[in-house]
Amino acid sequence: MFYIERVIQVEDRKISMAVVRRLPRYYRYLGNLLDNGVTKISSKELSDRMKVTASQIRQDLNNFGGFGQQGYGYNVEYLYEEIGKILGLNRVYKMVLIGAGNLGQALANYTAFNKRGFELVGIFDVNPKIVGLSIRGVEVLDIDSLENFVKTHDIDIAILATPKQGVEEIASNLSTWGVRGIWNFSSEDLLCAEGILVENVNLSQSLMTLAYQIHSEGNKSL
Amino acid sequence: MFYIERVIQVEDRKISMAVVRRLPRYYRYLGNLLDNGVTKISSKELSDRMKVTASQIRQDLNNFGGFGQQGYGYNVEYLYEEIGKILGLNRVYKMVLIGAGNLGQALANYTAFNKRGFELVGIFDVNPKIVGLSIRGVEVLDIDSLENFVKTHDIDIAILATPKQGVEEIASNLSTWGVRGIWNFSSEDLLCAEGILVENVNLSQSLMTLAYQIHSEGNKSL
Repeated sequence: MFYIERVIQVEDRKISMAVVRRLPRYYRYLGNLLDNGVTKISSKELSDRMKVTASQIRQDLNNFGGFGQQGYGYNVEYLYEEIGKILGLNRVYKMVLIGAGNLGQALANYTAFNKRGFELVGIFDVNPKIVGLSIRGVEVLDIDSLENFVKTHDIDIAILATPKQGVEEIASNLSTWGVRGIWNFSSEDLLCAEGILVENVNLSQSLMTLAYQIHSEGNKSL
Repeated sequence: MFYIERVIQVEDRKISMAVVRRLPRYYRYLGNLLDNGVTKISSKELSDRMKVTASQIRQDLNNFGGFGQQGYGYNVEYLYEEIGKILGLNRVYKMVLIGAGNLGQALANYTAFNKRGFELVGIFDVNPKIVGLSIRGVEVLDIDSLENFVKTHDIDIAILATPKQGVEEIASNLSTWGVRGIWNFSSEDLLCAEGILVENVNLSQSLMTLAYQIHSEGNKSL
């Protein structure tokens, strides 16, 4: 009951994506603390570990109703579980992978996702040399069977690890077929996919940002 | 001369990372336009394609001296080349890959980076089953030879695709050995690496952010 109320409250407040993006970090740090037997922590200690200011931490967690008690700090397990619930990690997400090239195969082999409830149930590719192979027990199917598969398996997330050609069309189809979100690794940012949530992971962009910093630091030290 | 002046100007103004992160997108879009034979474009047209407001585009590019002419728009090739220079893409970056597991191998097989001047010259792993293999003509070497390799090959960037254990120590060593930047794919964010630039790519965090959005949208529609 308490939880449902808070979710409504959270939505009313429209939490910024900047805060949302920090939550998985809190979740991970708290998980590490739990693994090490730490049961409570002050915002000061959490701040030292995470290199975020204590006031930032208090402000972030206040968005979700606080969780902390003055003079005691945070109950690590409680905070960990509550943030997990807020992130929606207390359920299973069924995923398909589209594109089983190098990057797709690497993603399919990532076991860490499974532990968090992200279950890869289908893999699809156009390449006849790859179709029929099996990755961690999941057979690679021909892309032609994607529509039927998605419609009958209640898929939450599609991982797009294809070249950029045709990405917008795939996204539009996935949306029509009822997929909720796309985790997009193609080099084309999906900007205008309707009716479907998109998280773009643009590796080239990330590498270029690093290059910029190296380059401009080099100029500074000249 | 003009360019050098602008770089200095850029550094004086302290361009925000938000702007810097948008530059590779401009660069990519302009590259696509060039490939399609488009020679000039207005901020309005660029805005429609990129789903960024025209005023945002003008503001972003003004950080670097503008490039646009009232009533004419932008010269695509000039703008493309200038942004490339600003990003530091008019030179070669020598890279090593540390960790040749699934993700590391996928990154090593990414040919798109090569075209941009990011040259993978060394691959390292601890696993004797992987050491000695060759990925796109680059032999996987034992991690023990990393120090000597890095010191003798003038490495700009190390791609970290290792498990999180020991990441901080590796980062500190790389810094001491003269590497300029780390592209970090390990699940541990590098927050306090001294003397070295870090670009964290946290895949779990990205997937959890998507899960949050799916989850909170689901609550909304109830």
